[in-house]
Amino acid sequence: MTDLRKTVERFWAAAESRDWTAFAETLAEDVVYTLPQTRERIAGRERYVEFNREYPGDWHLRTERIVAEPGQVVTWAHFTVGLEEMYAITFFTGEAGESGEGRITSITEFWPEPYEPPAGREHLSERY
Amino acid sequence: MTDLRKTVERFWAAAESRDWTAFAETLAEDVVYTLPQTRERIAGRERYVEFNREYPGDWHLRTERIVAEPGQVVTWAHFTVGLEEMYAITFFTGEAGESGEGRITSITEFWPEPYEPPAGREHLSERY
Repeated sequence: MTDLRKTVERFWAAAESRDWTAFAETLAEDVVYTLPQTRERIAGRERYVEFNREYPGDWHLRTERIVAEPGQVVTWAHFTVGLEEMYAITFFTGEAGESGEGRITSITEFWPEPYEPPAGREHLSERY
Repeated sequence: MTDLRKTVERFWAAAESRDWTAFAETLAEDVVYTLPQTRERIAGRERYVEFNREYPGDWHLRTERIVAEPGQVVTWAHFTVGLEEMYAITFFTGEAGESGEGRITSITEFWPEPYEPPAGREHLSERY
């Protein structure tokens, strides 16, 4: 288990419990958050904590899967907001441990939406 | 570097070069491919190879990022089809090596689409 993996576990636990002090402690001061789907970027710990603190809705999360190697972690997290369900795929990079404190230096996040399957592959796939 | 990581690198290289024999060799016979966004599932190596072989369009790919631990790998791959660009996030599980041949046993894939950012966070984010 890498240090960064533990940091990411603390990151999600702090988000779920709205403990913004603990949340901020997982982040490097110059952390950069990127949303490729909207081409948005938020630079710096203070702004990124604020973005999360202000995020509307009574959202709750659980991590479905986590894959970690030194300096890189990916999570697949399941979110609920009331009856709505969605998931986020999040790529983290960070200090690999040893020298640093294993804090998060970049976060790139995807929010895939449901869509209808294209025609022509029903002979191979089943719906669930 | 885990065996499964090498297998996943061969998987993408074989897909890009349409080498369906090499592609099939990366897969366990009972591999399951899941698309949570459409709730589709394709079971078995033969059907999954066929799905890829039949997939329309002159698509090309490069892997943007890969994160691996024993038995689990995630890739972020960038696809182009003519002028269209998209990306896929793919979670692989497989034989961890040692005993097995490091083949892929499950693939769960997400295709996030661009969307417009919600209003109210322009004070924190910049567009790129």
